Amino acid sequence: MIQTPYLLFLGDAPDPLAAKVAQGIRDWRPENSVGQFRMDGCKADMKLPDMTLAEAKAAGAKTLVIGVANRGGVISKAWKKVLIQALEEGFDLASGLHNLLGDEPDLVAVAEACGRTLHDVRVPAVDYPIADGTKRSGKRVLAIGTDCSVGKMYTALALDKAMQARGMKSTFRPTGQTGILITGDGVPLDAVVADFMAGSIEFLTPPNDDDHWDVIEGQGSLFHVSYSGVTLALIHGGQPDALILCHEPTRTHMRGLPGYKLPSLEEVRDLGLALARVANSECRIAGVSINTQHMGDEEAKSYCAEIEARFGLPCVDPFRHGADRLAEALEAF
Amino acid sequence: MIQTPYLLFLGDAPDPLAAKVAQGIRDWRPENSVGQFRMDGCKADMKLPDMTLAEAKAAGAKTLVIGVANRGGVISKAWKKVLIQALEEGFDLASGLHNLLGDEPDLVAVAEACGRTLHDVRVPAVDYPIADGTKRSGKRVLAIGTDCSVGKMYTALALDKAMQARGMKSTFRPTGQTGILITGDGVPLDAVVADFMAGSIEFLTPPNDDDHWDVIEGQGSLFHVSYSGVTLALIHGGQPDALILCHEPTRTHMRGLPGYKLPSLEEVRDLGLALARVANSECRIAGVSINTQHMGDEEAKSYCAEIEARFGLPCVDPFRHGADRLAEALEAF
Repeated sequence: MIQTPYLLFLGDAPDPLAAKVAQGIRDWRPENSVGQFRMDGCKADMKLPDMTLAEAKAAGAKTLVIGVANRGGVISKAWKKVLIQALEEGFDLASGLHNLLGDEPDLVAVAEACGRTLHDVRVPAVDYPIADGTKRSGKRVLAIGTDCSVGKMYTALALDKAMQARGMKSTFRPTGQTGILITGDGVPLDAVVADFMAGSIEFLTPPNDDDHWDVIEGQGSLFHVSYSGVTLALIHGGQPDALILCHEPTRTHMRGLPGYKLPSLEEVRDLGLALARVANSECRIAGVSINTQHMGDEEAKSYCAEIEARFGLPCVDPFRHGADRLAEALEAF
Repeated sequence: MIQTPYLLFLGDAPDPLAAKVAQGIRDWRPENSVGQFRMDGCKADMKLPDMTLAEAKAAGAKTLVIGVANRGGVISKAWKKVLIQALEEGFDLASGLHNLLGDEPDLVAVAEACGRTLHDVRVPAVDYPIADGTKRSGKRVLAIGTDCSVGKMYTALALDKAMQARGMKSTFRPTGQTGILITGDGVPLDAVVADFMAGSIEFLTPPNDDDHWDVIEGQGSLFHVSYSGVTLALIHGGQPDALILCHEPTRTHMRGLPGYKLPSLEEVRDLGLALARVANSECRIAGVSINTQHMGDEEAKSYCAEIEARFGLPCVDPFRHGADRLAEALEAF
């Protein structure tokens, strides 16, 4: 569990896209950040107060979160100076970078000397159990996709927000690095050892109030041969009551697999339900989420209307249209 | 890759069942063992020559394989003495025990001093790639089951043997500890990190002659919620041309999951094929393997005949009836 609130470290971000982790935190958990820390030449701006370490500390920040991707996979000397000073001034550090904070001897030594914690959210910090399949109280919804990177995390975050706006009880349950940094907790599922994947998701979504929804972040796709096992572990560990189908209509082949065509939404529905019902015989499809970023307004609208008619289910782009109709469908469950 | 041939260490096995790893090596790769090493009180016997370390060395043995489960999860002092002496006399050590050889400081120190290797086959020794889904030459067959522990490894080993007896080209590809010790190589799939599961199976079953079959050891079950993700990674990494359905008819619930009923063989066939065809559109079911150990001869015979009629596929218990009819079915592919 990463201590909040954060100071967002934007470093020397060469462009706004390099700071997309910070942007995710800013968009979805603005209350988790007291300010931003920018170095010379930083081209990203979260429209948060620029703060020194001392100012952020005084404002209550507990953790410096690296909200920016590093160039060339190396933590630069310029960054190091700030990170070490942050540890010395009493901040924990949190990072989703490929190269780990815990592999940097100087950071490890200073963190130890100062009694601070280095959070590498790519590395599981818990010994997860083997799944036991016991039915848990509370409800769970999971986004599954025709492909990887079609908007499952965005859908889950937007759904969680829409549910709370309706007064429903919900918790976003992250299963990837960005989601974990946004909320401060979660399971880095792609780094969990095979035998414990489903168990880690049971751990992530414990028994809860009967009217509480866990909104579980999806990973991979049942139809993506590189990661399908991760997706199935999510379905069987999460034992969802509801699935949301996610799709990006302009994708010409599976991400990173030029020889593989995308499945139809019907195929994802049928295979997803058949597998989900092994763990939860009551599982149903709640709705469809379309990522229409490469479409115009009219095209997006008519595409969603066509899907809605074809499936008899609410269909929206949560970014364009909001996720309220998906939340409404879950409320009626 | 573990160097063969082996000397099989049976230690102080309290009963023959405790030495089932040694028995597996003895049954399936008798050419891999020059002899057995037994301590006082050993109740297991592989009907191999009893040898001292020096005698085994002279007979060409390269590796001392721990073929017995240890009591209480501790490597006893009595064992240690033999293991250390073996390292000193030039043997590598190989083990599938839960407590690792590599976690024993004295064994590590002696192995290093003597230039020997400790093989803990529960731990991946390779950095596996992420699966890229490229179609590979050669053919592959995978056993999938209604449940865990229904005889998938036995089926694969028997099938490999029957195929070779027919003059077919085949290689057994282990994905679990016992299988790896039997052949000296393989992937400990349950210990592989999630993102690399399917890639590890691609690595295990590389391109091959068009008429060569990889016989891939199955793991878990699509219907076992604790391990289903591992099974799907096997299906998508292995891109099998043929599936063998495995079942144990007297099982009353899924192994370790009292609340979960076993699926029908039809359900396993349909879901298995639907998923396998994502990676290999030509995949078909080759036959059915029934574990009839809890049935009488007549009951076993009539059960297999009934399945055979129901599915229009060869159905055998490879232990009782041999696997030749399954090999024949693959030869006709």
